[in-house]
Amino acid sequence: LNSLLLELDGQGPLFEQLARALKNSILSGRFAPGSRLPATRTLSSTLAISRNTVISAYELLCAEQLAVAEPGSGTRVAAEIAALSTPSTADGGIPCSRYSARTRKLGPITLARLQIAPELRYNLQYGDPLMGASLFQSWRRKLAAAALREAIAEYLERRRGIVSSAGNILIVGGTQQALSLVSRVVLDEGDTAVIEDPHYQLAHHTLLAHGAHIVSTPVDREGLITSELPARGARLIYVTPSHQFPSGEIMSFDRRTALLAYAARHGSWIFEDDYDSEFRYVGRPLPALRSLELSDRVIYAGTFSKTLFPSLRLAYVVCPAGLYGDMLYAKRLDDLGCAAIDQAALATFLQGGQFEKQLRKSMTELRRRREALVGGLQRHAGARIQVGDSQAGMHVVAWLPDFSYPDLDRLIKTALTRSLGLHPIHPYYRKRPAHPGLLVGFAGVSVAQIERATALLGEILREIPGSLTHRAR
Amino acid sequence: LNSLLLELDGQGPLFEQLARALKNSILSGRFAPGSRLPATRTLSSTLAISRNTVISAYELLCAEQLAVAEPGSGTRVAAEIAALSTPSTADGGIPCSRYSARTRKLGPITLARLQIAPELRYNLQYGDPLMGASLFQSWRRKLAAAALREAIAEYLERRRGIVSSAGNILIVGGTQQALSLVSRVVLDEGDTAVIEDPHYQLAHHTLLAHGAHIVSTPVDREGLITSELPARGARLIYVTPSHQFPSGEIMSFDRRTALLAYAARHGSWIFEDDYDSEFRYVGRPLPALRSLELSDRVIYAGTFSKTLFPSLRLAYVVCPAGLYGDMLYAKRLDDLGCAAIDQAALATFLQGGQFEKQLRKSMTELRRRREALVGGLQRHAGARIQVGDSQAGMHVVAWLPDFSYPDLDRLIKTALTRSLGLHPIHPYYRKRPAHPGLLVGFAGVSVAQIERATALLGEILREIPGSLTHRAR
Repeated sequence: LNSLLLELDGQGPLFEQLARALKNSILSGRFAPGSRLPATRTLSSTLAISRNTVISAYELLCAEQLAVAEPGSGTRVAAEIAALSTPSTADGGIPCSRYSARTRKLGPITLARLQIAPELRYNLQYGDPLMGASLFQSWRRKLAAAALREAIAEYLERRRGIVSSAGNILIVGGTQQALSLVSRVVLDEGDTAVIEDPHYQLAHHTLLAHGAHIVSTPVDREGLITSELPARGARLIYVTPSHQFPSGEIMSFDRRTALLAYAARHGSWIFEDDYDSEFRYVGRPLPALRSLELSDRVIYAGTFSKTLFPSLRLAYVVCPAGLYGDMLYAKRLDDLGCAAIDQAALATFLQGGQFEKQLRKSMTELRRRREALVGGLQRHAGARIQVGDSQAGMHVVAWLPDFSYPDLDRLIKTALTRSLGLHPIHPYYRKRPAHPGLLVGFAGVSVAQIERATALLGEILREIPGSLTHRAR
Repeated sequence: LNSLLLELDGQGPLFEQLARALKNSILSGRFAPGSRLPATRTLSSTLAISRNTVISAYELLCAEQLAVAEPGSGTRVAAEIAALSTPSTADGGIPCSRYSARTRKLGPITLARLQIAPELRYNLQYGDPLMGASLFQSWRRKLAAAALREAIAEYLERRRGIVSSAGNILIVGGTQQALSLVSRVVLDEGDTAVIEDPHYQLAHHTLLAHGAHIVSTPVDREGLITSELPARGARLIYVTPSHQFPSGEIMSFDRRTALLAYAARHGSWIFEDDYDSEFRYVGRPLPALRSLELSDRVIYAGTFSKTLFPSLRLAYVVCPAGLYGDMLYAKRLDDLGCAAIDQAALATFLQGGQFEKQLRKSMTELRRRREALVGGLQRHAGARIQVGDSQAGMHVVAWLPDFSYPDLDRLIKTALTRSLGLHPIHPYYRKRPAHPGLLVGFAGVSVAQIERATALLGEILREIPGSLTHRAR
């Protein structure tokens, strides 16, 4: 009974709650098919609930054919459950969540009517809109989506070394939705998900809300410390290898291969959040995880939020073989698909070459802003600040080695009174780093503003002598 | 302060915004009855707003009897809130799914930085985009959202009798997303959800994929047969009262009140899918469920897919008090929010009166198409077809009382060879109706096309004599 975790959800009669909790345990494989359920007496005393309640719960399970009562020898989990509930390795299918196991039973998503419709003179189809040319609309929508996926596939092959057919690319409404869908498709409540420490908080919250068991694995100068991944495996590993968020570290090649080997060994899915890999100021970017050998476990997410603007709400997922269908279903049930007009506009923008032209312009300007920031910090606060700068992305980390955390509070408050917004990095860590630091974004402020802001920061720092003596590591 | 969810809605004075946000937190159970509200000083520094603003907000809450000021010991949530707001459980909070129980424990959603940001000369915030005026962007986004919600609230009050503050309206990416979010917020795996029989298949699939235990309750000429709702209650009831999909029936007033009483008795949530109530050809539409007494259990979803076009992907949910915070969290974790530009465009369209002008134009054209269809069916196939016509929406049902199901197959196949697309209604039913029928959409075909299509249908019907003798019911 040790490994038995029964979470009663507090809704409805107690025996139903217990039955639901047991059902979850059975369906998630915590109770193997054919295995004995705990004796009613044992369970009743362990949970401190009446034995009648336990008996009623067991009866309900038997009624649902999840369990079988065996006179004289208690109650067993039905022998057929596994086959029924886990569409996993045995049947040759890609393992997935209970959510996706259910969508797999819903039948195919057919776009077939769109194929035949234009041939019809009259189609008395419900659901077409009034405003003219409905079939043209449907077609355009389909074509727009196809065009965008095609354009993204080309772009990824050229810029990120990722070879994927357009057919494995899913258009989503941002990286947030990508992670939300992936959670639904691969994770059940209680499944283990690894996040980096430090990490992007909303990713953490998304997995938590989904009910994942979260393990946070630390990052050093080479990115995720793969030797500290959970020995028992994990269903999902969320990483930012191109530019760890927020520490800024780039995952080394050795760690990348170690991570892929781990995923292959444990059957883990890797969520590669490649949120800002487009911006790299020195040398060539390392190839995406998704472009390496063994990468069939990698779900790659790229976004237009950083390269264009966040309110566009368009991003894309490169799905591993076998996961595309589940992802498409989850997207369809989530919101039927992204707005066709925005997709069409973006496809045109990519195909016409304007997107990469825009990227080059952005790079030039971001490079100037980054140099202004790093230079300004050096000039005005070089003795107090250590800049963690990975020469990539849209932010740097400014460590404050002679600061205590109360000093940091004073700094931020004082800066606020002088109209300078500073943002601490420690909220992104599970445990506060030894020294405080600032997460300094430079994409949203002009070079002139950055110069004045760093000078102002220098002034304020002179008013706040750090209370720690060791000023350098 | 951990469990505090504060979304300032950007409307009216800041202290009122804060009071509204706190009120939502209180009603949703994030602040338990009798618990201490944060000290004004703490809240003021956390949100970076003046202490006077916080004090004014607290005074407003006290005036509304949601809080009680206790000299010397701060302000407390009133002890009686639970009784006032929750038609349900012991722990005082609005009951919700395990998903929402988890989001309630996550940190606050503070949009407060948007409030303070414009006051800063330099804000070294990560995550702002490069392309100029990032703060302006943020503001515009927020304002656009606020403006759209305001415009929808006005529209709903005028056209559907629904009184709601903009603060209870959530913008979503279609009715599909509305249902998907509602499932996450109110349903756990195994919870009972009722759908109508017949029903919109994707709604069924959404609930199935989510793991709900589905009970389907039949519909007659008065809509959902409320006496056949499950005696043990249901967590969620999905209905289309304005124009049952696909049968076309309109739910009678008696059934509406019976449904609301059932929901109040069992603590069920009702999902009112008001997908095409804008189009009614005779008389006035019945008021929305959400506009009636006891409607606090009704989650109302309206969409622009039928009135404008589906690829817009914009719809809205009017949330019951206390559920807005959970829905907002689910939306945020799902995709961070809908594209700001589309929202802004739509808000302008609504505010400028163009939307209702467009509605009137659509009504005129839809009325012509509907008359052409009903007239054409009468003229060319009146002896064979019984039209189920509720004088609303964008489709009618054409019953074929002398047809067997094999006859229907022949009809559809023959029509296809003549380039006429016909669509059976029985796939929407759990059990095939006694006689086959066609679901005939008229919004996407012109009057001229409808005339030719009904003539063609008449011709084909003459070639296929129904194999059943009783030609009339």
